[in-house]
Amino acid sequence: MGNKHTTRNEDYSKWYNELVDRSDLAEHSDVRGCMVIKPYGFAIWEKMKDILDKKFKDTGHVNAYFPLFIPKSYLSKEASHVDGFAKECAVVTHYRLKNAEDGSGVVVDPDAKLEEELIVRPTSETIIWNSYKKWIQSHRDLPILINQWANVVRWEMRTRLFLRTAEFLWQEGHTAHATKQEAIEEAEKMNDVYADFVEKYMALPVIRGVKTESERFAGADETYCIEALMQDGKALQAGTSHFLGQNFAKAFDVKYATNDGKQEFVWATSWGVSTRLMGALIMAHSDDEGLVLPPRIAPIQVAIVPIYKGEEEFALVDAKAREIVANLSEAGLRVKYDDDDNRRPGWKFAEYETKGVPVRLAIGARDLKEDMIEVARRDTKEKNSVSLSGLEDYVIELLKDIQKGMFEKALNFREEHITDVSNFEEFKEVLESKGGFIRAHWDGSAETEDKIKELTKATIRCIPLDEKPSEGVCVYTGKPSTQRVLFAKAY
Amino acid sequence: MGNKHTTRNEDYSKWYNELVDRSDLAEHSDVRGCMVIKPYGFAIWEKMKDILDKKFKDTGHVNAYFPLFIPKSYLSKEASHVDGFAKECAVVTHYRLKNAEDGSGVVVDPDAKLEEELIVRPTSETIIWNSYKKWIQSHRDLPILINQWANVVRWEMRTRLFLRTAEFLWQEGHTAHATKQEAIEEAEKMNDVYADFVEKYMALPVIRGVKTESERFAGADETYCIEALMQDGKALQAGTSHFLGQNFAKAFDVKYATNDGKQEFVWATSWGVSTRLMGALIMAHSDDEGLVLPPRIAPIQVAIVPIYKGEEEFALVDAKAREIVANLSEAGLRVKYDDDDNRRPGWKFAEYETKGVPVRLAIGARDLKEDMIEVARRDTKEKNSVSLSGLEDYVIELLKDIQKGMFEKALNFREEHITDVSNFEEFKEVLESKGGFIRAHWDGSAETEDKIKELTKATIRCIPLDEKPSEGVCVYTGKPSTQRVLFAKAY
Repeated sequence: MGNKHTTRNEDYSKWYNELVDRSDLAEHSDVRGCMVIKPYGFAIWEKMKDILDKKFKDTGHVNAYFPLFIPKSYLSKEASHVDGFAKECAVVTHYRLKNAEDGSGVVVDPDAKLEEELIVRPTSETIIWNSYKKWIQSHRDLPILINQWANVVRWEMRTRLFLRTAEFLWQEGHTAHATKQEAIEEAEKMNDVYADFVEKYMALPVIRGVKTESERFAGADETYCIEALMQDGKALQAGTSHFLGQNFAKAFDVKYATNDGKQEFVWATSWGVSTRLMGALIMAHSDDEGLVLPPRIAPIQVAIVPIYKGEEEFALVDAKAREIVANLSEAGLRVKYDDDDNRRPGWKFAEYETKGVPVRLAIGARDLKEDMIEVARRDTKEKNSVSLSGLEDYVIELLKDIQKGMFEKALNFREEHITDVSNFEEFKEVLESKGGFIRAHWDGSAETEDKIKELTKATIRCIPLDEKPSEGVCVYTGKPSTQRVLFAKAY
Repeated sequence: MGNKHTTRNEDYSKWYNELVDRSDLAEHSDVRGCMVIKPYGFAIWEKMKDILDKKFKDTGHVNAYFPLFIPKSYLSKEASHVDGFAKECAVVTHYRLKNAEDGSGVVVDPDAKLEEELIVRPTSETIIWNSYKKWIQSHRDLPILINQWANVVRWEMRTRLFLRTAEFLWQEGHTAHATKQEAIEEAEKMNDVYADFVEKYMALPVIRGVKTESERFAGADETYCIEALMQDGKALQAGTSHFLGQNFAKAFDVKYATNDGKQEFVWATSWGVSTRLMGALIMAHSDDEGLVLPPRIAPIQVAIVPIYKGEEEFALVDAKAREIVANLSEAGLRVKYDDDDNRRPGWKFAEYETKGVPVRLAIGARDLKEDMIEVARRDTKEKNSVSLSGLEDYVIELLKDIQKGMFEKALNFREEHITDVSNFEEFKEVLESKGGFIRAHWDGSAETEDKIKELTKATIRCIPLDEKPSEGVCVYTGKPSTQRVLFAKAY
């Protein structure tokens, strides 16, 4: 209240940074690139984690835990993997400190130098496949369907909370299969699991596709992805699922005995989503007033604010409010009753608006007399006076409406921001004036892809899975092309 | 089956190592001191984690996440903390690798040296209090009741799976309070939460106490703990909760404005349990055949094995087994139906015995005719033929019995292994011949404590909270003592 916040139109990037701060989601720590995820931000991540974890288990996966550290030499074992990952890493070189001789604190003990340096995992394919080598002998040991929830570190010079941080939280699935077909099906299935989660829970429509060769994960034969569109017209990769072929099996010599006794290399996948999803969630739905959270992952779905003057009114309003809380909680909703006497209702309204609570109820003495209550929905800012009888059903339906409405709004925005273009002038013009996804023919070469990126900063986000072949000419080179792909500037 | 396993009597330590391996809980990785927690082990840890997390939330705590890395200088800020923790740590000195010029792989890039080294957190007091400094201005900002689930690293030269590893998983609660009294109550409350969890879920009785000054956490004014007894007569510290006084508030200059506008330092607690609890669970209950898991945290509570010859019998038995699975699952039990045709029933029986599944059902064609089923309980190895009607109720009651029986067995063992001694000869004799806790008078000095440790390897596990003052003389020095304390050799 009082402070004027930056709006999306004024400066989208600043709006985002301010919003993460004032809605109490996260903050930068003093350690370069590492964030502190504050309780409210973590509560959202926990919800997302719980839902995803259940989906992984429902599709037959189990959790496990592998070491934080990876011996430096492991990274070199898979040739393209090392090129993609080995560079910007946190490197552990020593295992002991000692008191400084001048009493000024502690210093690294030079006698405690590791023989081989350890890398803080940027991703765990190498350390995990080193274990799988021991676990897999026969076709009976397959498939292995393991997921891990973990922290990973990729050194970054320019960081933004949730979107790009040196340390982030994620899950990484690592599976091993007897056949190529089964591994491909797994990679596709997990990409679908991600799409389903992001659409149904985060209320954010995604495009399912595959990456071009140059955008693939380092060590993958195919990278499936889901791409979402933010309100500033930039795309965000919300999840990836990789078919790794036999690359890691060969790098770590992991073979299995087939039914008829032959030795074959194992087929692999890996797939992951991270706290980056928090960034997508914030940027896709929020408005100039604050967060807008989809009910299915909102830590608080309904906030109740009592309005009263004096103790007598409070007693009446408080009793009714508690009854409502009990009923809504019993119906399975996540409810917060804010009876803090130190804050005025107006302050509370602004607070829950900032925090994106989907539904806010306000109940006063006058409402009570009329057996009514004020119901405000966060997404559209509509307010209604609603009868207290049947309130539970009303709120439950309203939450469903909000979830649906948020998805549809985001979907409409996305559909309005997919533009077909047929020449490079148009490409540049749409990219600058309108943004969003540009659907264009591409000649299939990495050179053209690089050139377009160099000239426009747009990359090929994906080749959509549902895109049908069509004859055309490349938007940049004019060479023949058989399919349109989606370009965009991206986070 | 076939392989003879080491028994507890033959070699307790070897028995433990073999058991962790053959019950598929965990294994050493190639990274010194770091373990791989395998899916079955992780499933147990997940159960424990879920229950504890709920208990923390029910007592008003929220989760958050703080950085993995701690600037080296932070560790020096709290004087006794640095002595206790700063030494055996993983130290990050560089943030980039580069390709070796001779093409042999990757090397650390000497140009990417950090200005200040980062320590992989051995515990997070310092980094968290550096944040709390920003979060706390007024009494209105208190209390802060935050928990974090995280991995931590304390370099260890001699490691044992779960019991002592360089990297381990844990939770660490860090709370900030306006008053000393409130902080002490919090530390005591969380010690009670741990005790309740370990006793009611892990079926393991604990003694609640406080540590002597020399055994306290580095930076604490008081360390509360719960101590459990393993089958070999050694004690294991299962959890600790620290009243930190104003030590960290002073080190990080964290003050709050009181109601009447004065500036006061904040009071603190921290408390944690780790994957070490897995070690306690295994060592407290398991037998020479394998794990024995308490039903409340067993990932599989009931395993069902069909016994049949030929397809016709299988069809009958399978149909009934599936009906039982459905009923037991509906009753909320975690059930595994093992219809793997590649394994013989005997192999399966041994497998579930090794894995400590509390109840195993075996159903054959003959049983079916008689409307009976064989029920085997893991803890006592009793088998009974039970009527199929009413099986659900029978199994539910049986699981409760097992939970209760396991606790009572462990409690009896513990009670039999608390021995009062009155002189040092007796002390040594009991320690060597019988083990367990030795209840003895101690003169209260750190010198005596050290001397006893040096001579016998026994440490003061705790001063029990329920121990009444009693006049006596120190078991070692003969000096006056006002209370008995508990000594033991410990993990």
